[in-house]
Amino acid sequence: MNRPWNRVPVAVLGSTGLVGQQFVRMLEDHPYFELVALAASSRSAGKSYAEAASWLAGGEVPSGARRLTVIEGARPAVLGAGARVVFSALPRAAAEPLEAELRSAGCFVFSNAASHRLDPDVPLLVAEVNASHLDLARSQVARHGGAIVTNSNCSTSGLALALGPLRPLGLAAATVTTFQAISGAGRRGLASLEILGNVIPFIRDEEPKMLRETQKILGRVDDGRVRPSGLEVEATCCRVPVRDGHLLSLRLELETQVTADEVREAYEAFRGLPQEMGLPSAPARPVLVRLEDDRPQPALDSLMGSPWRARGMAVTVGRIRASGRTLRLVALVHNTIRGAAGSCLLNAELAYRQGLFGPMQPDTLGLPLAQ
Amino acid sequence: MNRPWNRVPVAVLGSTGLVGQQFVRMLEDHPYFELVALAASSRSAGKSYAEAASWLAGGEVPSGARRLTVIEGARPAVLGAGARVVFSALPRAAAEPLEAELRSAGCFVFSNAASHRLDPDVPLLVAEVNASHLDLARSQVARHGGAIVTNSNCSTSGLALALGPLRPLGLAAATVTTFQAISGAGRRGLASLEILGNVIPFIRDEEPKMLRETQKILGRVDDGRVRPSGLEVEATCCRVPVRDGHLLSLRLELETQVTADEVREAYEAFRGLPQEMGLPSAPARPVLVRLEDDRPQPALDSLMGSPWRARGMAVTVGRIRASGRTLRLVALVHNTIRGAAGSCLLNAELAYRQGLFGPMQPDTLGLPLAQ
Amino acid sequence: MNRPWNRVPVAVLGSTGLVGQQFVRMLEDHPYFELVALAASSRSAGKSYAEAASWLAGGEVPSGARRLTVIEGARPAVLGAGARVVFSALPRAAAEPLEAELRSAGCFVFSNAASHRLDPDVPLLVAEVNASHLDLARSQVARHGGAIVTNSNCSTSGLALALGPLRPLGLAAATVTTFQAISGAGRRGLASLEILGNVIPFIRDEEPKMLRETQKILGRVDDGRVRPSGLEVEATCCRVPVRDGHLLSLRLELETQVTADEVREAYEAFRGLPQEMGLPSAPARPVLVRLEDDRPQPALDSLMGSPWRARGMAVTVGRIRASGRTLRLVALVHNTIRGAAGSCLLNAELAYRQGLFGPMQPDTLGLPLAQ
Amino acid sequence: MNRPWNRVPVAVLGSTGLVGQQFVRMLEDHPYFELVALAASSRSAGKSYAEAASWLAGGEVPSGARRLTVIEGARPAVLGAGARVVFSALPRAAAEPLEAELRSAGCFVFSNAASHRLDPDVPLLVAEVNASHLDLARSQVARHGGAIVTNSNCSTSGLALALGPLRPLGLAAATVTTFQAISGAGRRGLASLEILGNVIPFIRDEEPKMLRETQKILGRVDDGRVRPSGLEVEATCCRVPVRDGHLLSLRLELETQVTADEVREAYEAFRGLPQEMGLPSAPARPVLVRLEDDRPQPALDSLMGSPWRARGMAVTVGRIRASGRTLRLVALVHNTIRGAAGSCLLNAELAYRQGLFGPMQPDTLGLPLAQ
Repeated sequence: MNRPWNRVPVAVLGSTGLVGQQFVRMLEDHPYFELVALAASSRSAGKSYAEAASWLAGGEVPSGARRLTVIEGARPAVLGAGARVVFSALPRAAAEPLEAELRSAGCFVFSNAASHRLDPDVPLLVAEVNASHLDLARSQVARHGGAIVTNSNCSTSGLALALGPLRPLGLAAATVTTFQAISGAGRRGLASLEILGNVIPFIRDEEPKMLRETQKILGRVDDGRVRPSGLEVEATCCRVPVRDGHLLSLRLELETQVTADEVREAYEAFRGLPQEMGLPSAPARPVLVRLEDDRPQPALDSLMGSPWRARGMAVTVGRIRASGRTLRLVALVHNTIRGAAGSCLLNAELAYRQGLFGPMQPDTLGLPLAQ
Repeated sequence: MNRPWNRVPVAVLGSTGLVGQQFVRMLEDHPYFELVALAASSRSAGKSYAEAASWLAGGEVPSGARRLTVIEGARPAVLGAGARVVFSALPRAAAEPLEAELRSAGCFVFSNAASHRLDPDVPLLVAEVNASHLDLARSQVARHGGAIVTNSNCSTSGLALALGPLRPLGLAAATVTTFQAISGAGRRGLASLEILGNVIPFIRDEEPKMLRETQKILGRVDDGRVRPSGLEVEATCCRVPVRDGHLLSLRLELETQVTADEVREAYEAFRGLPQEMGLPSAPARPVLVRLEDDRPQPALDSLMGSPWRARGMAVTVGRIRASGRTLRLVALVHNTIRGAAGSCLLNAELAYRQGLFGPMQPDTLGLPLAQ
Repeated sequence: MNRPWNRVPVAVLGSTGLVGQQFVRMLEDHPYFELVALAASSRSAGKSYAEAASWLAGGEVPSGARRLTVIEGARPAVLGAGARVVFSALPRAAAEPLEAELRSAGCFVFSNAASHRLDPDVPLLVAEVNASHLDLARSQVARHGGAIVTNSNCSTSGLALALGPLRPLGLAAATVTTFQAISGAGRRGLASLEILGNVIPFIRDEEPKMLRETQKILGRVDDGRVRPSGLEVEATCCRVPVRDGHLLSLRLELETQVTADEVREAYEAFRGLPQEMGLPSAPARPVLVRLEDDRPQPALDSLMGSPWRARGMAVTVGRIRASGRTLRLVALVHNTIRGAAGSCLLNAELAYRQGLFGPMQPDTLGLPLAQ
Repeated sequence: MNRPWNRVPVAVLGSTGLVGQQFVRMLEDHPYFELVALAASSRSAGKSYAEAASWLAGGEVPSGARRLTVIEGARPAVLGAGARVVFSALPRAAAEPLEAELRSAGCFVFSNAASHRLDPDVPLLVAEVNASHLDLARSQVARHGGAIVTNSNCSTSGLALALGPLRPLGLAAATVTTFQAISGAGRRGLASLEILGNVIPFIRDEEPKMLRETQKILGRVDDGRVRPSGLEVEATCCRVPVRDGHLLSLRLELETQVTADEVREAYEAFRGLPQEMGLPSAPARPVLVRLEDDRPQPALDSLMGSPWRARGMAVTVGRIRASGRTLRLVALVHNTIRGAAGSCLLNAELAYRQGLFGPMQPDTLGLPLAQ
């Protein structure tokens, strides 16, 4: 394998699913990471990735991935190919033991699975909001040799990015009703008869996730553990016949009075560490504000946030209405990008730049960091 | 015209639109009312109703309506045909002067238009919730010779029926996010490119309507006027790609602590005057409760509430979650039936039985009142 | 069980699926048949039908079925409950041995499964088109004690009813492109991501079925076997995001020149044995003709064909364009009713009236035959 | 205006509509053409393009166009801004006189409107199929000073590109059933209630266009006029709930026997003048072949055909089935790109390179011609 020695070799687990494909798409020509192995279930094993994937992530299968053969099993894929960083799009049950095992083998696992999100020493990271939680990973390295870093549930990503910039205003309570896209249920998760021309006002396990994950993300690290925020998040999660893009109708109670203009300014001024460091997958601005009455809309705004690699990485907010200490707004997040693979990759970029995988080598530092 | 003298002759204005068609459908073989005239715009005038309507209300055009010729103009249609009761599905601008004019001509106008809903002496009626407001119509008769009785906006109908049974628990505040069907925008109100595979988080004028109309409906009549309820209703109204059925995600603050079971029982026990009187279009139970995790759903539950004529007249609630004085639930209303034509007709049935149009005649009383 | 002795006891196999539910719906208060048993897979066994079914067939679960408990296994369901006639909505693989077994046990199996459709001694019946093929069932009775009678594939039902009335014109060749509804793939057959906002130009096994089944239906019985028609049917079968109703775009080559008016008249004049005999599920007219430019449409015309029980039993044709010996038209069939359960039930009604299950009893003859 | 003198200044008429937006998108950083003016109706006039457009063409409004102010009226827009080449996305009625007028003023009008498509001296061009017809434009220049060059109707574009490569096999007859996307009806052309969950088997004027336009495209220029091909095209045009991408189910009769492999090879080998010349908007291959059973699909394949500017410029075919001299296949064309703006722009690029606007200047020739 003819590989520039200075990019970190990475593997993708669950690589043929919707989130797996987004990993593959976003890793194309990545400045820090080089895709060296793709794992999937026995059904795909041995096939070329192009054949196994039934590509749905837009455009064509990236040429780098096209040449790879799908490997069955995480261990062979990762360790056999010499990957040091692993992106996991595994289902929850499979992820739990496998990710821990890979960590023990010294790997750095960036996982979209829910299994370890609430583990006390595992960071649940939304890179613009709680980058400091990455410290938790360092103590994992000390204990296990490697580390697991998780990103949040798809709708929680949108919520966290909508809440993060408002923390200075004091977050007292959040009520959210979601309009979630069908791709959030996975490739075959939702039958067409269930959702065509319909709304389903329930998504299993989603509402408690929005509560617990948001509390962890907004919490602070104290003595090597996260002390969760006490913010109450009351969620009603609904599925709508939209392909991509989760829309959230939010009502927030704040600790201070605000005007809509102040909120808009808070969003527009907001930048996180990924923006400061110019991480490759960071959107120029984490939160975009639409001033039109009827935006954001999934069909128009899900992919916003240029440049190309970062398309779909920004959250778009609109319909900002403030009254006293009550604030209402609508937020939109691309669920398989910012809500899954994209957030996960951004976390890995942050970890890379912060030296989690070891001291950075001189020539790596010389790489162009923005695309 | 060979007409049994004891049914009240009625006309429908705006008869070819979606709501107009529901009027026509529900008036077929009605025990109190006989359809004698159909009015529409000049484009339809002179055509047979079957030809003019491009029927969308399910099944075939009722045979009674099929034989009628569409008349241009409300006055000729109503007065020329000797109609005494008028069902109005006119657009707001047209409705305002026309309905007042017909009232002055001694007609009883049951209107789905927004024009007069907030007039101080016009009842805004959800028959199971505020039947007593019908008294306002009597003073109109004294002043104008006839009366206008309005029903609420489509989503407000669902909200009012979800709130009504909970009044004994003390309603302190309501936050609602709606998922509204495309038929609520009228036949050509929403372009397909706007909504296919999309959500639009805004519906013009809908949110203030939900506030003002709910406050009036829940208000009490005092000295010939409605004293509105002070209930704050914060609404975020969204359009989804669903044909029929508005879904509401509700968060209520109550004045007392409740359990989900108490709320369920309150809904199941709830009956209004229409049920007590056995009005022809009254659903057997105004509010149906679903216990499944994932109901109600527009595609499955919008038309619930047998028997036939009353299909779509019940509101379905589900996902009842109570915590202290906070209550969350989902409610579903069929927007062109319970949210429009059906509520309007039920109001007329109530008015008929309460003698608004004059003393009831002996043989009318003998009619079978349930369908 | 308090059962009038003169209705035939029947069981439904695969009763919780989409087609199974249509059987249950159409058997409610049936004049010939009494539903005595419902079978389904082990997942549903032991549950009440209302609980097991997740009812999708419109309205509420019929009260007769609501009281039944779902039985696992065809044999226990049928033989244990004393059913003599069986309606099968089983998947193909399960149907093959089970239906043969029930036939050997003396049952009359009316099956929607594809397994036995092309068996030489099994009638493949579209009751208005080839009622005479029912004779094949009599020889089965002689050999096996019971008989299997099949109806065609859903899209073939529509094609056969569109072709049948034109046989006097000489059918030379048929090219058909279908627009098939998602319910044709079964409850979970098609993932929402596959079809939302999309067209899939392929349905596995459907095209050869349309050829072979149409040839058998249009064939004639000769010496106890069907001699298939030589009509070439070239089909391209596509899935579209529509809930119910398969639309067919047809191009026919005839042996004689025709005009559009002649074709329209042939359709309007067409009646089959079910109409002559007034079978309960027979539509008043098997083929309805729409003259508008833009009809039939699945959302408007699928359920046409009154009265109630027969809704969805008529095929609707439109866009008739003739030029020389070439004819083009569009046909629409409700796929789970006329294309499945309804056709199957109509076949059973025909068999019942023709005495297939034994000599008809005097008091049965006295039953009102039309609903 | 700081403009490199060697790019041709161009204007877009009807610039805010769906096709107009595609022109604007594809003209961004175009190597031959520089966008200098945007015209639209009085409703948009005076607004910035970003404000007027309600951008739907993906991503953000290109920065070049973002700075322009929309001008009312074709003449002021074109002549006032010094545009020499005009791209017209006008509606038919407006296009007819305006385009002729601009031609008389010496402009070169590349039009997507139907008005002049069948004029004897106006080329109806699908650049890979009948590039030689561009000669007709030269005689227009002689007569009028400028010229009008048209592209075909959206579904005809797909048909012509599917037929072109097969001409060597002898085209005897074509039967086509279309599945057309809603964007083909324009921004507000189709109400959501008409098409959500439905199929409409009729599109006004579309079927005769497919016949006449295909005959002209496949005809040959003889004595300054097009002698149309005698190919019979029988079309049934249907609308389906898909955003972008017209799918065509085709049945062809050829003059020679073919195999599916021969057809596939004919498509894969096919290249036109745009490919030979490396025109900026030319797809690398005009026709892509999919070998999977179930492709092409609008949601997956409409935008195929890299690189970026040429995305959506290739037609994708699949399901090739040959039997004797009969061939069946499915073709997919992106209706607002290859079926409209993209084809129109490609025609202009061809004309530019063939010197239609005057002798090419040395430094123009030096421009990089591929993107």
